[in-house]
Amino acid sequence: MQLKLEEILNSRVDGLTKGIPAGAALPLGDVGKQGWRLLEGDVPLPAAVLKKSAIEHNVDWMRRFTELTGMRLCPHGKTSMSPQLFDRQLAAGAWGMTAATATHLHVYRRFGVQRILLANQLVDPEGLRFILSELKRDPEFDFYCLVDSTASVEILRNAVAESGCQRPIQVLVEIGQAGGRTGARTVDAAMEVARAAHRAAPHLALRGVEGFEGVLEGATPDQTMARIDRLLDEMSIVASQCDALDLFADGPIILSAGGSQFIDLPPSLQSRLATKREAIFVLRSGCYITHDSSWFSEYAKATALRMPSISQLGAGLRPAIEVWAYVQSLPEPGLAIVAMGKRDCSFDVHMPTPFAWFRAGSEKPAPLARHRVLRMNDQHAYLEVPPDSVLQVGDRVGFGIAHPCTTFDRWSVMLVIDDDYRVVDAIRTYF
Amino acid sequence: MQLKLEEILNSRVDGLTKGIPAGAALPLGDVGKQGWRLLEGDVPLPAAVLKKSAIEHNVDWMRRFTELTGMRLCPHGKTSMSPQLFDRQLAAGAWGMTAATATHLHVYRRFGVQRILLANQLVDPEGLRFILSELKRDPEFDFYCLVDSTASVEILRNAVAESGCQRPIQVLVEIGQAGGRTGARTVDAAMEVARAAHRAAPHLALRGVEGFEGVLEGATPDQTMARIDRLLDEMSIVASQCDALDLFADGPIILSAGGSQFIDLPPSLQSRLATKREAIFVLRSGCYITHDSSWFSEYAKATALRMPSISQLGAGLRPAIEVWAYVQSLPEPGLAIVAMGKRDCSFDVHMPTPFAWFRAGSEKPAPLARHRVLRMNDQHAYLEVPPDSVLQVGDRVGFGIAHPCTTFDRWSVMLVIDDDYRVVDAIRTYF
Repeated sequence: MQLKLEEILNSRVDGLTKGIPAGAALPLGDVGKQGWRLLEGDVPLPAAVLKKSAIEHNVDWMRRFTELTGMRLCPHGKTSMSPQLFDRQLAAGAWGMTAATATHLHVYRRFGVQRILLANQLVDPEGLRFILSELKRDPEFDFYCLVDSTASVEILRNAVAESGCQRPIQVLVEIGQAGGRTGARTVDAAMEVARAAHRAAPHLALRGVEGFEGVLEGATPDQTMARIDRLLDEMSIVASQCDALDLFADGPIILSAGGSQFIDLPPSLQSRLATKREAIFVLRSGCYITHDSSWFSEYAKATALRMPSISQLGAGLRPAIEVWAYVQSLPEPGLAIVAMGKRDCSFDVHMPTPFAWFRAGSEKPAPLARHRVLRMNDQHAYLEVPPDSVLQVGDRVGFGIAHPCTTFDRWSVMLVIDDDYRVVDAIRTYF
Repeated sequence: MQLKLEEILNSRVDGLTKGIPAGAALPLGDVGKQGWRLLEGDVPLPAAVLKKSAIEHNVDWMRRFTELTGMRLCPHGKTSMSPQLFDRQLAAGAWGMTAATATHLHVYRRFGVQRILLANQLVDPEGLRFILSELKRDPEFDFYCLVDSTASVEILRNAVAESGCQRPIQVLVEIGQAGGRTGARTVDAAMEVARAAHRAAPHLALRGVEGFEGVLEGATPDQTMARIDRLLDEMSIVASQCDALDLFADGPIILSAGGSQFIDLPPSLQSRLATKREAIFVLRSGCYITHDSSWFSEYAKATALRMPSISQLGAGLRPAIEVWAYVQSLPEPGLAIVAMGKRDCSFDVHMPTPFAWFRAGSEKPAPLARHRVLRMNDQHAYLEVPPDSVLQVGDRVGFGIAHPCTTFDRWSVMLVIDDDYRVVDAIRTYF
């Protein structure tokens, strides 16, 4: 399917937007035609940019991964909140898009996403009104959300009943674990929710079982995996019991797990499940589209160890986000202050990783080793530099990032570059 | 002075903007006329909102503080990046606005800010081109930035010389401290920079001395104050030496320090300085406009101890930002999951502080004690609740925040509410 992107491509950008030069005033869709060079002073820095080649590689890699494993992909759009990137994900065969909030639903529907899995409880009256009006308006709209308590079932049931909507809200029972986030904490609790959802027909339709393993943490990696293993077991038990009791509504049973840290979980879940009815397995990874330079890179290594067959896919995901900024001060030995901060780049998992530098007049960026970000303020980074550092005031430093979600949300427009650091496109985000 | 806000007030908002309901499509300036009630499901949550009465109180309090102390106020606009709030700050007598980045300069100039102190080294060629074109275009534009090395002086000097601009860039020498951020590390180093700036006439004009105490940290509060004390001493020594050597260009000497943590520093600096020429003292606090519920509140208490005369001003700054969100799950005893996360609220200093709750049908929010945010994910908060917690799934919880800067930058539009939680206005931010 294709999204309706004209509104975005025709929307105007100018120097009020971080990353766009002062004199510019043009449609977003024309940004790539200006011949701007990222590192030659054509655009203000700091700038967080997307590497076009890496995005294309990652989207294609994930398409091949889901083909290899027989999974459906329902990428979490919260990562980028960019319909232009959603469009690439859907064009590469994604089953639908995952959302988290009411505003996400507004954005997805505005640009034409037809299948949405809200991987969250929906209790916001405004969001409920919107979803019900969309279900009434568009018979092709296919919507799912989570329930993890009889209270969340009641809120949905009442909203559908009061709206007069003739189609049900489709729900998945969420399974959680003690100390985790949302989700029923035991098989018994989950079955109580499932029965409540079944009883709420025709207003609700119980369609599957969901879990999110990404927030489960053990004291060691083995203990983390043991907790995740238990989550998958409980998900398959609940799905089997619901199947045996005929609690599921018509259609294939939907089993969904797997953020970007554990993309191999839906296949693992598949191998545990035996239901009368057909089941489909939905992976919700969002961060794969840009990957990163440290956090998810480590998870990818662990995934490859758990799932050797992944090597069939060749080179893995590549980091697709870089942040570039100027050295503004070298105030004392061993320290450079760079004009980039918490407003420009994620800092919630790891500090950004300097990997390249560029000086005006150079042909291309050169690798930068042995430099390290110590900390960041709102608009500054403290860079530890070795005694023989090449850096001078005015040089550009390129950083890899950790955690795409908390980098994307610092930019309303991100420039897209080719491998020669020419600006070839731009995306808009909706945070 | 008054800013040109028509472009903002006429700009359209709709459900693509976080905090605005799905069906709405209206000029930003009309948001306050819709009769939306924040807590009654008229708008999607989470929503970060500004309390109108607290903003007005804070702006007036700071006006009275600067009158009491004889300071100039040049609020750091990076806090809100909202020209509508800048306008209030300037209308209350602010001397100018402080900025941090090239894009800040674009925004400030677009809406008519006539005096800008860029409290940063300016090395970005795009930013330099813009500032020089503005200096050429508008003889009333009064611009200052920082230098802390001869390299930063050279970059500015060359840019002015090449531009053919007939007016100088006015500079302040920045004084820093070992282990701090930017700024010359010794009096000798600062004097070398000052002499270089003086020699760079007519392209540069040395106008003053600057320091930022907010990044200095000692092992104890007393050690922090000792470091700050030394910074102020060095600033006054450098200013006195530059004055004695006639390095300053025409006009009053500008001495600037003081973020929101230490608003009493410029007065303290004033008491140390003896120069032949008149000096003015510029406070750069930005966060005062919204204050907060924990971090800056603690600093305000310490300020009152250091400066008893502040009690003349009556009630101090009030927290003006609240974030409201739904309880989406009560998955296990002692835990509520709230639909608000790192995308909606600052988390870099302290977690947000739950202080009130509301249930549909209630007359008004009620206080909420003994609840505490344990941690946040991108879109979720983990709320520790007591055994007798009143909270049910679907209830609203109101949070105070720590660090306004990293809350503002998560919202492109923020709703403004009255004391009855009616939406009476909206502001746009430019991050």
